[in-house]
Amino acid sequence: MPTYTAPVTDLQFVLHDVLRIADSDLPGHAELERDFTGAILDEAAKLAAEKLAPLNAAGDAQGCRLENGVVYTPEGFREAFDEIRAGGWNGLDLPEEYGGQNLPIVIGSAVGEIFVAANMALNMYQGLTHGAINALLAHGSEAQKRTYLPKLVSMDWTGTMNLTEPHCGTDLGMIRTKAEPQDDGSYRITGQKIFISAGEHDMAENIVHLVLAKAPGGGEGTKGISLFVVPKFLVDEDGSLGARNAVSCGKIEEKMGIHANSTCVMNYDGATGWLVGELHKGMRAMFTMMNEARLGVGVQGYAQAEAAYQNALAYARDRLQGRAVGGKANPDGPADPLIVHPDIRRALMDQKSFVEGARALALWGAHLIDRSHRSGDADAEGLISLLTPVIKGFLTDRGFDATVQAQQVYGGHGYIEEWGMSQYVRDARIAMIYEGANGIQALDLVGRKLAQDGGKHVMGFFEMVKAFIKENEGDEELKRDFLEPLKAASKDLKAAAMFFMQHGMKKPEAALSGATDFMHLFGHVCLGLMWARMAKAAQAALKAGAGDATFYETKLATGRYYMARQLPATALHLRRIESGAEPVMALDAAAF
Amino acid sequence: MPTYTAPVTDLQFVLHDVLRIADSDLPGHAELERDFTGAILDEAAKLAAEKLAPLNAAGDAQGCRLENGVVYTPEGFREAFDEIRAGGWNGLDLPEEYGGQNLPIVIGSAVGEIFVAANMALNMYQGLTHGAINALLAHGSEAQKRTYLPKLVSMDWTGTMNLTEPHCGTDLGMIRTKAEPQDDGSYRITGQKIFISAGEHDMAENIVHLVLAKAPGGGEGTKGISLFVVPKFLVDEDGSLGARNAVSCGKIEEKMGIHANSTCVMNYDGATGWLVGELHKGMRAMFTMMNEARLGVGVQGYAQAEAAYQNALAYARDRLQGRAVGGKANPDGPADPLIVHPDIRRALMDQKSFVEGARALALWGAHLIDRSHRSGDADAEGLISLLTPVIKGFLTDRGFDATVQAQQVYGGHGYIEEWGMSQYVRDARIAMIYEGANGIQALDLVGRKLAQDGGKHVMGFFEMVKAFIKENEGDEELKRDFLEPLKAASKDLKAAAMFFMQHGMKKPEAALSGATDFMHLFGHVCLGLMWARMAKAAQAALKAGAGDATFYETKLATGRYYMARQLPATALHLRRIESGAEPVMALDAAAF
Repeated sequence: MPTYTAPVTDLQFVLHDVLRIADSDLPGHAELERDFTGAILDEAAKLAAEKLAPLNAAGDAQGCRLENGVVYTPEGFREAFDEIRAGGWNGLDLPEEYGGQNLPIVIGSAVGEIFVAANMALNMYQGLTHGAINALLAHGSEAQKRTYLPKLVSMDWTGTMNLTEPHCGTDLGMIRTKAEPQDDGSYRITGQKIFISAGEHDMAENIVHLVLAKAPGGGEGTKGISLFVVPKFLVDEDGSLGARNAVSCGKIEEKMGIHANSTCVMNYDGATGWLVGELHKGMRAMFTMMNEARLGVGVQGYAQAEAAYQNALAYARDRLQGRAVGGKANPDGPADPLIVHPDIRRALMDQKSFVEGARALALWGAHLIDRSHRSGDADAEGLISLLTPVIKGFLTDRGFDATVQAQQVYGGHGYIEEWGMSQYVRDARIAMIYEGANGIQALDLVGRKLAQDGGKHVMGFFEMVKAFIKENEGDEELKRDFLEPLKAASKDLKAAAMFFMQHGMKKPEAALSGATDFMHLFGHVCLGLMWARMAKAAQAALKAGAGDATFYETKLATGRYYMARQLPATALHLRRIESGAEPVMALDAAAF
Repeated sequence: MPTYTAPVTDLQFVLHDVLRIADSDLPGHAELERDFTGAILDEAAKLAAEKLAPLNAAGDAQGCRLENGVVYTPEGFREAFDEIRAGGWNGLDLPEEYGGQNLPIVIGSAVGEIFVAANMALNMYQGLTHGAINALLAHGSEAQKRTYLPKLVSMDWTGTMNLTEPHCGTDLGMIRTKAEPQDDGSYRITGQKIFISAGEHDMAENIVHLVLAKAPGGGEGTKGISLFVVPKFLVDEDGSLGARNAVSCGKIEEKMGIHANSTCVMNYDGATGWLVGELHKGMRAMFTMMNEARLGVGVQGYAQAEAAYQNALAYARDRLQGRAVGGKANPDGPADPLIVHPDIRRALMDQKSFVEGARALALWGAHLIDRSHRSGDADAEGLISLLTPVIKGFLTDRGFDATVQAQQVYGGHGYIEEWGMSQYVRDARIAMIYEGANGIQALDLVGRKLAQDGGKHVMGFFEMVKAFIKENEGDEELKRDFLEPLKAASKDLKAAAMFFMQHGMKKPEAALSGATDFMHLFGHVCLGLMWARMAKAAQAALKAGAGDATFYETKLATGRYYMARQLPATALHLRRIESGAEPVMALDAAAF
């Protein structure tokens, strides 16, 4: 059965050596010293290793069960959720006003990685609650905030997001769920929503559904959509729970993975709801939360890869099979451990160099959100808006690939459920799909974010890369191993952006045909930048003689691997992009 | 629920327009005219669509069940297997002497693709039987052939291959199963084998196990291994079934996929077995069958991709979501079908261009085996020996990726089991692992096949590519779209082979670190060659005005896609290979 140990040292390295969060001028950041964040991460690590991870495989095997409208989560989940609740983990990065601790999102994300890696299905109940809280924080009335937020922050209640309907997911303009205004200011909500994660379960006394629906007078398409809050139990004026609302779970889906999270068909049969934010501005309300929600899914992508990698590494050290090509490494044993074999090394280094680069990118993204929220930094806001589809799409695509590689290290044992590696693959697969399928992320990046504010943010990104290279190229080693590969990759990214500018206007299909390649090209450049930064930080630590030298040497070697063997993929993506729309669109739809 | 329609036109195109099998001088090939093979494929297509495919999802959901030593296959499987048996499908490419039809393996492989695409788990019972037949044909005594082959060819009995033990899979030198010689010439077999596909089931009256075990006096490692035949029921002299042998199924594994195939732990408790082939030469006996078995697994890789692609295509045509960037394609509907979107096109073209190229490669490989078997062509034998790890490794890696892409087209619906796309991904995953995990294929390619007979076969391959280019470069269109990309890719492959020659002797790790990249590089060049050949054939057919012009135009457009967007991956693989062992092996095993 797999085990999981939170990579606290690696997280601390990113927070302090790379992002230097305690040196930031943002409100509340001065207190974020190494010891302080270390204590938080150690506690999260303990909870993850002792309570959450041990339930992961059992939760997958048992799954959720619907009986008479009640969804039962797997054995042990209620108790584990109670522990998360009791530890106040959900409020970590939420306002003190509603019971949170007001720490920055970068800390919430670091803890999030740990909980997701330990038990993704369980963590989703919390993740959806977080999403609902953010929606209410941004758009709820004062009364709504007072009614719902304290209970959601404490997770006495959990939240959901209801967007998809059977006939539409991406294209929300077609939704049919209706909201009819009532005399008391509430709305009567009628319709069916599908794929509602944590839509119904037995771990909280109330569930607060946020629902997209069409109220009269909004016009066609997405313009007619409004956002409503629809609690499972109505809440009385004194905050106590009242009548059961007319919302129910009609079915839970059988899925490839995340079996322990209930994915529900939700039926709204004239349920009572209240408008959140402005009428007919529901889509806008959804979009304002997306950066953070999508960052969270990006974290899922690499966190599953981290957990799978840890186990693949342990197996590669333990399993004796074959002999090292250079002579016996384990002469007293019947064979050498798998890890001596170059092709196994390659697979492990692929995973390791991806996960560590991804972690730096995701935490940098979280830090940009903090910067935008806490000091109104418009550049940070623009940059994270640009990077969000890259973080979501690239980290989940590559994270899934990494879980497949980890499974492969086990040979046949990876394919049987007993060893738990299949679950990482099956669970990681969803992250490429939900919260906007990765093709939609690519479209968002190329069709919207790239040209946003006149292309200011992508230019800012290029400037940042250029400045970093210039600032550090005096260091020969850094220059050869990190800055020159980064420069080449960044040049490919620029050429691709240029291609889109030249062709995108006349022929949008040319840009859209290269969208997924551009997202991956951008992702590689981001990870190249992260590795260059990490290398610089590791060098500095080595020079200062701080900490464990082997740790920093390992960082440098892992980074060199990424730069030598992964980053050159940018040239292939550019090549594909520059082939334009013709190969992609040549066939008539009927000719396939 | 997914459906499947056998691509008979595409198969016929490869058999006749590309491979021109009826023009071959091989014995028995003159009769293989278009109508003749068309009639066979149409029959196979009918059986697949009407009987095999409809059981696929149900078989996955139901799985196999072990009760008191008996394994029950899913509902309907016995009847479907009876139909395959009654149609004589198993004997298609087997000797007439034992009840087969003696058709070439290229026909068996074409039918194999159809059966695998329709229901991989069911087809495996047949595939393993085929493997056992080939082992006995090559190494069995005359008496063994008479006893077992007629019943195995008819599939009244089925076969298995028993290699893996709990502590060793790849490294068979460590096996512990013992074979003790008895006075009557038989052996007493004792030990445990795992991951035995079709090891026990309810679809045949006897199961013939081929078992690797160690008999006394063979020495250490693989040298001590012999091959034994161990029937579930002993066979009396008159061919009737006698006593139950001391072999039993101790457990069936819970797996990620191929649920309808029973993967058994087999316990040999002093079972009676007989030596097959020479004593202590069991490994050699296994190896002689590997080309064909591994080709079969390569077929599984692209066949699953074909079935998944067909359904993704249908969904992309059917599902209305969003509007085409160039204006409404379906103005009367609420939205346009997914297939209008460039990123969906890209995903479909990736799948289509892979599957069609893979089919040509696999059938070419089968034709090379026929050439080697039927006319003792040593060059064909050498070439297929070289290409076998490429066919197995590349087609299963890329086939799996293609099923993931097909699933992605469905968005959230791809993740729930109801739509059946998850099963293609889960089933395809095993093909990367069994019959030698793909890392082992890469090792076999680089460490053994490349230098075989002084590098003669890889040189022959390069000569063949060169000759094809030279012969056809008078055609400007073919030259621009196909031959020049092929030439560039082939140059990358040569450079990689050169790198291995220069560094592999001094530092084997340098070659082994690039093994998987080399396998993929080689695979791309093979598919590039296949597409160039298919393009030439399509052009010829268009010029001759034969058949459906749209079919051939579509072939050309699909080929141009592969050459423009997939083949350039060779440069990335070369780049990685040339980075050598240093990045891969830099870390100490303890430093990970």
